[in-house]
Amino acid sequence: MILYHSPHTRSSSTIALLHELGLFDAVEIRVVTVRRGDGSGHADPANAHPEGKVPYLVDGDEHIRERGAIFTYLCEKTPQAGFAPQPGAPGRGAFLSWMAYYQGVMEPVMVATILGLATDGFASTFRGRDEITAELRRALDRGDYLLGDRYSAADLLVASPYLWLPDFVPDDGVIKAWLERCAARESLAQTAAYDSTLIADMT
Amino acid sequence: MILYHSPHTRSSSTIALLHELGLFDAVEIRVVTVRRGDGSGHADPANAHPEGKVPYLVDGDEHIRERGAIFTYLCEKTPQAGFAPQPGAPGRGAFLSWMAYYQGVMEPVMVATILGLATDGFASTFRGRDEITAELRRALDRGDYLLGDRYSAADLLVASPYLWLPDFVPDDGVIKAWLERCAARESLAQTAAYDSTLIADMT
Repeated sequence: MILYHSPHTRSSSTIALLHELGLFDAVEIRVVTVRRGDGSGHADPANAHPEGKVPYLVDGDEHIRERGAIFTYLCEKTPQAGFAPQPGAPGRGAFLSWMAYYQGVMEPVMVATILGLATDGFASTFRGRDEITAELRRALDRGDYLLGDRYSAADLLVASPYLWLPDFVPDDGVIKAWLERCAARESLAQTAAYDSTLIADMT
Repeated sequence: MILYHSPHTRSSSTIALLHELGLFDAVEIRVVTVRRGDGSGHADPANAHPEGKVPYLVDGDEHIRERGAIFTYLCEKTPQAGFAPQPGAPGRGAFLSWMAYYQGVMEPVMVATILGLATDGFASTFRGRDEITAELRRALDRGDYLLGDRYSAADLLVASPYLWLPDFVPDDGVIKAWLERCAARESLAQTAAYDSTLIADMT
């Protein structure tokens, strides 16, 4: 498998996933440049992603885009890691829901909020920050992590934007304590160290 | 299983999915009112969805939200229907990518475009209509349907907004021909007939 990656991007959570799944040494990581939100950088012709984004995963004939899909795909490839419920197992519906909710609600709401675009019309489809906070609390009132007692791929993906955007962290002790547990994972320290070596190599 | 549904909404594509999977008679459909985009209607206290939206699927202890998750979950429950590649099968990565791309890119871009919110900043994360058209063409240049030669759950979900929003249909003969094939499915006629009976019962 080949993963197209750029340090200090949304792709970094995919590096952490590789560590959690024991796949970091089994996947070829191709480091590419990307156009950043601030307008710096540029799409890299070496990136197989059709729009020059990261992460992008290639597994033989399979080309996989969007983190919700990449996370689900890699967890299905490595059931022995026990990092997500497999099809038919308890919690599968909750896992798939978090993957889709992250992609289809959390990221649009967060980006629209940052850009000042979170209008009533936008909220009519996607709802807003208060509903996201409530959704997190409903899960965390039942266990230390989104799927219950164990840290999983759902926590890694759903917690990821809060670790980059502390202004978005709700003023809620239960959610803050969960984010602290998520931030303490060794896989995040490993990812930060890896990204730092990539940045150092670039400069 | 229980599906919370309201006629003539995004949920209608889930009714079509039940028909395609042979599950229409196996799932209890609870018809609820929803708050519509035009401000009419109201969330139904009988709806188990925490925000009063549809579709919402309950399967024992599993509560599943967002269509990308509901489609994936139901296709995993009914592998014999052959309506989506199962884990490990060729095309699984493409299937998961379309589910996540629909949720995380297509729907945000379409809603933002309709609301006049598709700014450069928004496009920096989500890209826009041209990239969606290009993504559809890349798939349809390889086969009659998004995953190849057979109609699948990916076609049902991804085609669904175009059937409601004809202004969004790209001026592209290959894509238009695919949409015509998708629109001709018996499951859509069955869904339209079912939704019509629900509307008639309401009035």
